[in-house]
Amino acid sequence: MNPPLYHRALCALLLSAGLALAQDNLSPEAAPPPPAPRAVILIIGDGMDDQQITIARNYLEGAAGQLLLDQMPLRGTSQILTTEDNVSGRPVYVADSANTATSMATGTITSRGRIATSAGSDEDLETIVELAAAAGYRTGIVSTASVTDATPAAFAAHISFRLCQNPDAMEEIVYRDIHLGACPADMKANGGKGSIAEQLAESPLDVILGGGASHFSPIAEGESVSVLDVAVQRGFEVVTSKEALVQAGTSGRLLGLFSPDTMPVRLQGEDGRLAEEPEPSVLNHLHRYLGEVTLPAPMNCESNPAAAGMPSLQLMTEAALARLSRDNDRGFFLMVESASIDKQSHERKPCGSIGEVEQLNEALASALAYAESHPHTLILVTADHSQAAQLVPADSLFADFPVPIYTPGKVARIRTPEGSLMAVNYATNNFSYEEHTGANVPLFSNEEGRDRVPAFVRQRDLFTIMRDYLDF
Amino acid sequence: MNPPLYHRALCALLLSAGLALAQDNLSPEAAPPPPAPRAVILIIGDGMDDQQITIARNYLEGAAGQLLLDQMPLRGTSQILTTEDNVSGRPVYVADSANTATSMATGTITSRGRIATSAGSDEDLETIVELAAAAGYRTGIVSTASVTDATPAAFAAHISFRLCQNPDAMEEIVYRDIHLGACPADMKANGGKGSIAEQLAESPLDVILGGGASHFSPIAEGESVSVLDVAVQRGFEVVTSKEALVQAGTSGRLLGLFSPDTMPVRLQGEDGRLAEEPEPSVLNHLHRYLGEVTLPAPMNCESNPAAAGMPSLQLMTEAALARLSRDNDRGFFLMVESASIDKQSHERKPCGSIGEVEQLNEALASALAYAESHPHTLILVTADHSQAAQLVPADSLFADFPVPIYTPGKVARIRTPEGSLMAVNYATNNFSYEEHTGANVPLFSNEEGRDRVPAFVRQRDLFTIMRDYLDF
Repeated sequence: MNPPLYHRALCALLLSAGLALAQDNLSPEAAPPPPAPRAVILIIGDGMDDQQITIARNYLEGAAGQLLLDQMPLRGTSQILTTEDNVSGRPVYVADSANTATSMATGTITSRGRIATSAGSDEDLETIVELAAAAGYRTGIVSTASVTDATPAAFAAHISFRLCQNPDAMEEIVYRDIHLGACPADMKANGGKGSIAEQLAESPLDVILGGGASHFSPIAEGESVSVLDVAVQRGFEVVTSKEALVQAGTSGRLLGLFSPDTMPVRLQGEDGRLAEEPEPSVLNHLHRYLGEVTLPAPMNCESNPAAAGMPSLQLMTEAALARLSRDNDRGFFLMVESASIDKQSHERKPCGSIGEVEQLNEALASALAYAESHPHTLILVTADHSQAAQLVPADSLFADFPVPIYTPGKVARIRTPEGSLMAVNYATNNFSYEEHTGANVPLFSNEEGRDRVPAFVRQRDLFTIMRDYLDF
Repeated sequence: MNPPLYHRALCALLLSAGLALAQDNLSPEAAPPPPAPRAVILIIGDGMDDQQITIARNYLEGAAGQLLLDQMPLRGTSQILTTEDNVSGRPVYVADSANTATSMATGTITSRGRIATSAGSDEDLETIVELAAAAGYRTGIVSTASVTDATPAAFAAHISFRLCQNPDAMEEIVYRDIHLGACPADMKANGGKGSIAEQLAESPLDVILGGGASHFSPIAEGESVSVLDVAVQRGFEVVTSKEALVQAGTSGRLLGLFSPDTMPVRLQGEDGRLAEEPEPSVLNHLHRYLGEVTLPAPMNCESNPAAAGMPSLQLMTEAALARLSRDNDRGFFLMVESASIDKQSHERKPCGSIGEVEQLNEALASALAYAESHPHTLILVTADHSQAAQLVPADSLFADFPVPIYTPGKVARIRTPEGSLMAVNYATNNFSYEEHTGANVPLFSNEEGRDRVPAFVRQRDLFTIMRDYLDF
C-alpha cells in the first residue's frame, strides 16, 4: 500500500463522483410537467421538525407506529436560508415564518419578518399564487392560523413587516407600550398596497380559509366599509362557522374566517397545563450536586374545549379541494398550513403541537385521496423552520449519578396512550415565547415528486419545483 | 357538495392509497443482491441529527453551501426505538448509542446500555459482523472513539453493560465513588465472553481501528498476558501511530489503537472554550424583565493541538478499505463511526462536533471513491440518535422587546468563516453532560440503495437491508 498514491487516486475518483452527484442533485433532469388539469398541494407544518414529528408519532401512533406522513414514498430535506435586511446581507442562521414562506412562495431569500418583499430594497416579489392565477389556475390558502399570518400571507400579499395584518396595524403596532414596528410605506395613501387583510381581499385567490376574522372587521383604508365588505364586493362568499362551511356550495370564491385570530387547537395539557420548571430543593440552590428536585407531575393531553365547533384542517382542506377542482380543466395551487405546531411550541404546549401534527396528517389524508382520483397532483409536505421543543429522556441518561439532574428550562412529562412517559423540553430562552431553531427541515412528496424533488433542496427551490410542475 | 358523503369517499380512497403506501414502504420489493464481490459500508455519525448537520454545514461550507452528505442521491429517516430492560418492556423514548448500535448490528431492539444482548433476558444477539464473517466476508470497524465504545462494540461483542470495556472493568465500575454498574455474569469465570476488549481481540474482525489502547493493556481474564497480546496471538498486526498505519501493508488482520481512549477531536473552541452561561445583571435576578445580560463573547473554532499526529477518520477508512478489499472476491462489511459529534455535544463543545462532521464527510468521500471503482458497494450514512445541541438565533426573534432574553442553559456564539455569528444552545440539563434527544434521524445512501432503502425505516431495518444486500 502506498497511501499517498492511493489517496490521490481516491481524490481523483471522488472529484468526478462528487461533482457528478452535486450536479445531479442541483440540476436534476426533472420529469416534464404532466398534462392538464394539474394541481399542486403544498402542505406546511409550521415548525414541524423531526423532534415535533417524533413527539407526535409517539403520542398518536406509539413509538413503533407510523404517521401517514411517515408513509410518504419520497423524503428529503430542505435547507432554510435567510439574510440580514440589506441588499447583500450576510447569512442569518435562524429564520422565521415570514421569510421562509416568502422563499417557498416566491423563490427568493429574504430577511425575517418580510412578506413577499425583498431584503433591503423592499421590492414586491411575485408569488406562486399570483403567477398561477395569471396562468389560469385556481388558487387557495388554508391555515389554522389567521389567514393574515405570515405563512399564508406570503403567498398572496407583499408587505415589509408581518404584523401589519389589518388597516389599523399600519401606522404603529404597539404591545404593552412596546413599539413592534409599522408599515407606513405600504399604506395606500403612500402608494402601497395596504395591509395584509386588504391585499387578501383584493387578491386573485379563489379560496381563503382559516382564522383571522378580527383582521377583516376594521374599515379598509380609504373606504367606508370593512375589509370583509371589500372581499364580498370582490366576489367572495363569506362563511364564519363550520356549519356554514359544510353547507356552502362548491362553486365561486370562498372566504371562511372561523375565529378572531389563530384558530383554537385541538389538544391541550391536562387542565391547560404547559411545560413547567422543575423545583429544586433549598440545598440544591447551594450546589447543583446537593439536595433533590421535584419534576413537574406527569400529565395527559386532553381535548381543548375552545376548539369545539371549529372546522378541522381536514374539513377546510376538503372544502378547498372541492372549490378548486370543480369543473376545472386547468388545475390549481393550494397551500395548506398547520400553523400551531409552531405557535404551541413557542408557548411550551406540547399537547397543542401534537394535535396540530394530527390535523396535518388528516389534511394530508384528504390530499392523498384527492390525488388518488386526480393523478396529476403533486403533493409536497414540509416545514418552514425547526422549533424549540426537544424530546428528552424521561429518566436522565445519567440517572445512576446520585445528584438531581433536571432541565434549566421547562419540561412537560406526558403520559402516552401506550403507557410510557414522554418528556418534552423547552429551553431556548427565558422569555414568554421560545425561539425557533435553525436546522434544515423534512420534505415529503407523493410519487408525483419522483424525478422532480431531489433529496436535498434549498427551500426556495420548492417554488421552482411547483412552478415547473404547473408549467408557467 | 355533500361533505359527509364526500368525506366517506375520500376515506375509502385513502384506505386503499394509505395501505398501499404503507405496504410499499414496510415491505418494499427490494432489488436483488448484486453479484459478488459486494460490500456494505455503514457510516454512523454518532448523534448526527439535522441540528448538527446544519451547524456543521454553516461553519464548513456556509449557510448556502452543501456538505458531501447533502449531495447523497437518496435520503430518508430512521425511527429510533428502545425499551425498558425487561422482556416485554414498554417503549422508552430516548435511546443511547449501545441500544441503537445493537439495533443496526443485530436487527433487535434492546434497552439502553446493552451491547448486542437482549432486553431483560440478556441473551446474545448475533451481529452483522459475525454473520458476514461466517458467510466468508471480511469485516471491519473504524471509530474515532475507543473501539470498545458502545457503537463499534455492538457490532462484534455481547455484554450486558457498555462500560465493561476491559478486564478490569467487569466486577465494579466506579467513578468518583459512584457505582455505575458491572458485568459479573459476563466474566469468563462465570461462563461469559469477557470484556468488550477481550471479545474484540477474539472476534472474527479483520480490521479494528480507532482509539482505546488503555482497554487493551490490562491482563486478559484467566491469562498471563494483556488483551493486546491476545490479539497478536490471534493474528492481528498491531499499529499505534499514524506513521505505522501509513507504512503497514494491506494484507492480514489489523488492529490500530491510536490513543488511550476516545481520539482527540480536530477542532475546539478558541482557547478551549465551550458553551457558557449568559451572565444576567443583578437587577435581572430580581425580575426577568429587568436589568440586562452579558452573553458569552463570540469565538472562533481553532485546531485542537491534541489531535496533532492522529490519523484522520478518512485515513483509517482508507486503510480499512485497502485491507478489506485486497484480493477479495467475496466482499466485506465495514462500519465507520464519527463518534465525537455526540461526545462533544455532551460536553457542550460545538467546534468539536463540527470537526467530527467534517471527518465523517471526508470518510464518506473515500467510501464514495471506493464505490466508484467497485460498483457493488452499498453506502449507508446515518446517525444513531439525536443530540442536545440546537442552532438558535444569534439575535432573539423577540429582540424588539426591551428585556434581556437569553438561554437558561449554555450557549456558544461562533464566528463563521462567512462572517456571521452562529449561536449553539445546550440546555437539556444542569449536569456535566447533556442528554440525548429522541427524534428520528437522517439516513442517506448512494445509488445502490435505490429500491433497497425506503424513505422511512425503523433503525433495526438497517440490519435487514445490509444482510439482504450481502445475501446471507
